[in-house]
Amino acid sequence: MKIDLSYGSGGKQTSSLINDIFLKHFDNPVLNRLEDAAVLDVQGRIAYTTDSFVVTPLFFKGGNIGKLAVCGTVNDLAMMGARPRYLTAGFILEAGADSQVLEQIAQTMRETADEAGVQIVAGDTKVVEGSGNIYINTSGVGEILKEGISIANCQEGDCILLSGNLGEHHAAIMSERMGIENNIASDCAPLFSLVEGLLEAGIDVHCMRDVTRGGLGTVLNEVADSSACQVEIRETSLPVSKEIQGFCSILGLDPLYMANEGKMIAVVPGEQAEQALAAMQRNPYGAYAQIIGRIEKGAGVRMITALGGSRAVDILYGEGLPRIC
Amino acid sequence: MKIDLSYGSGGKQTSSLINDIFLKHFDNPVLNRLEDAAVLDVQGRIAYTTDSFVVTPLFFKGGNIGKLAVCGTVNDLAMMGARPRYLTAGFILEAGADSQVLEQIAQTMRETADEAGVQIVAGDTKVVEGSGNIYINTSGVGEILKEGISIANCQEGDCILLSGNLGEHHAAIMSERMGIENNIASDCAPLFSLVEGLLEAGIDVHCMRDVTRGGLGTVLNEVADSSACQVEIRETSLPVSKEIQGFCSILGLDPLYMANEGKMIAVVPGEQAEQALAAMQRNPYGAYAQIIGRIEKGAGVRMITALGGSRAVDILYGEGLPRIC
Repeated sequence: MKIDLSYGSGGKQTSSLINDIFLKHFDNPVLNRLEDAAVLDVQGRIAYTTDSFVVTPLFFKGGNIGKLAVCGTVNDLAMMGARPRYLTAGFILEAGADSQVLEQIAQTMRETADEAGVQIVAGDTKVVEGSGNIYINTSGVGEILKEGISIANCQEGDCILLSGNLGEHHAAIMSERMGIENNIASDCAPLFSLVEGLLEAGIDVHCMRDVTRGGLGTVLNEVADSSACQVEIRETSLPVSKEIQGFCSILGLDPLYMANEGKMIAVVPGEQAEQALAAMQRNPYGAYAQIIGRIEKGAGVRMITALGGSRAVDILYGEGLPRIC
Repeated sequence: MKIDLSYGSGGKQTSSLINDIFLKHFDNPVLNRLEDAAVLDVQGRIAYTTDSFVVTPLFFKGGNIGKLAVCGTVNDLAMMGARPRYLTAGFILEAGADSQVLEQIAQTMRETADEAGVQIVAGDTKVVEGSGNIYINTSGVGEILKEGISIANCQEGDCILLSGNLGEHHAAIMSERMGIENNIASDCAPLFSLVEGLLEAGIDVHCMRDVTRGGLGTVLNEVADSSACQVEIRETSLPVSKEIQGFCSILGLDPLYMANEGKMIAVVPGEQAEQALAAMQRNPYGAYAQIIGRIEKGAGVRMITALGGSRAVDILYGEGLPRIC
C-alpha cells in the first residue's frame, strides 16, 4: 500500500498506520498506552541525545535505515558511559512511501532495539509531499554508569584505541548506489556491549566517540580541539580490511574520512591500553580492535605514515558522501 | 546563504552550521560541550516524548515551525503532569534552505524554550536533496509532578474543561496558504503554566490532552476509548471566536476537527470543575476556558446540539489539512 498525505493528519488513517505497523512491531507496555508522553523510571544521572537518519538507499548490505536509526542513537549514549534504556522514533514519510517497506524497517528497529537492550517508548509520524523517501529521527535516554567521560578529558600519555576496521559502512552504501558487486557489508552495530566490557574490566576510560560521518580524521580533530592536546596516530596501526583497501585504491578514497556505523575510539590511560585492547577484542564487535595512537602535548592531529614521515590530518572538507546515514 | 548537501556531511560545513546558527542561539553549557550526548540531572520519574514538525508555510501569523516544534513537545510532557526540562532538536534540511530563515527559526526556538523553562541540550542536522523545505523533530524530557494522570483515567461524573477557543492554528495556516487576509493568529503556545496552575490549585486532574492534529473530536474519542466511557459535550459550551465562526461558515469547516497548538482539555472530578475553571481562567492561555462536558457510562462521544438534539461525534476521517504542524 502506498502511504498518502491523509496518513499524516492525525485521524483514522494515522491511527491505522500506528496500529498496523508501529504498535505491532514496537509493542511494549509503555508505548501501547498511547499517552502524550511515556512515563519512565530512571536511576541517577541520564545521558540524552538525538540523531536523524536520511540514508539512501533505505536498504543496504548489513542493514537498513531502521537499524542505523537505533544504532546511531544508542551508540551516542554509550559513548558517554551510559547504558541505553529508552528510545523515541519520529518518522517523516514522503507520500508514496510503501507501507510494507515501512513495516520491514519497523521490524528491524525492534530487533536492533532488543539487541541493544532499549525500548521504543514514544513515536510520531508525519507525511509530506515527495517521492516515497523515509526519514527517521530517534532520540535516546540512558543511565550514566561512569561519570566524567568526555571529549575534553583526554590527557597526555593516554592511548587511543579503535574498535575495528574502517570504512565499511561508507563502502557498502557507495557500492549500493553505484551498483558495484562485492561482499562489503555495513558495520552498523550497537556498541554498548563494547563499552560495558571496558568498564567491567576496570578501565578508567577518559573519552569515547563513535566514528561516523566525517570519519576517523574528523573525530580525532574534535578530540584534539576539545581536550587541547595533540593526537598522534600511526598509519600502520589503522585497521582496514583488504577488501576496503582495494575498494579505496580503485575509487581514490581515504579510509580516514569514510563513515562507519559500528566503530568507536576509546581514549584510556597508557598503562591500561593493553588491558583495554584485550577487553575490546573479546567482543565480536571489537575483534579487529587496535591501539592506533597516543595523546601528546600540542594541538591538531598528526599521522606517522607507513614510510616513517609525519603529516597533519585535517577534518573532512567538502561533501563527503551525502546521505550516508 | 543557500544550504547545500555539503552541510550535512559531518565535516567543516556541518561544523560551521552548528557554530553559526545552533550554538549561537541555543547557547547553554550542556549543548556547548558538543559531546555525543548531554549528561543531565533529573529528579524522580520522567516523562519522555517526541514529535516531528513539517508545517507549511514555515512562517505564519502567531508563530513559525520553530515555535511549534518547542510548544508541541513541551505540551506533550505537560499533559502527563510533568515539568518540561530538556529538549533535543533534529533538523532535516532540504538543499536550498536559506540559512537566514534557519537562523530566525532557531532564534524563535530559543525564545520559546526560555518561556517554557526548557533547555535544548542536544541536536542534529541532516541535509537531503529537495527544494528548501525545513523539517524539525524535537524530543523532550520532563519531571513528573503528579502521578497517575492518564488518558485511561477518566471516571463517570468527571467534568471536561477546554482551555480556550477552537480552530485558530488551523485557520491561521489555511489563511496563509490561501492568501486570505484576516487577523486570525495561530494559538501556538507552551501550556505548562496552565497545568502548573491546576496542580497548585490542588485539582486532582485525571487526564489532560493537548488538542492538536485531528481536533477536539478526535481527542475526545481517544479519551472515550482509552477510559472505556462515554464523553458527552454541549455544543453551546464550545468556545469558538466570532472570527473563527465566520471563517468556518464561509469555508464549510467544523471547529471540532480543526487543529490547535495551544489548547488542552483537562478532565477533573465533577466537584472540582468550577475551581479548575477558575485556575485556568487566571492564566492568559486559559482566558476563554470553558467546562464543555462530562464523562458518562457508555462508549463514544456524543454532542448535545444547540437545538437540543444529540449526535455522535466521530474521529477525523480523511485528509484534514496536510502539514498543519
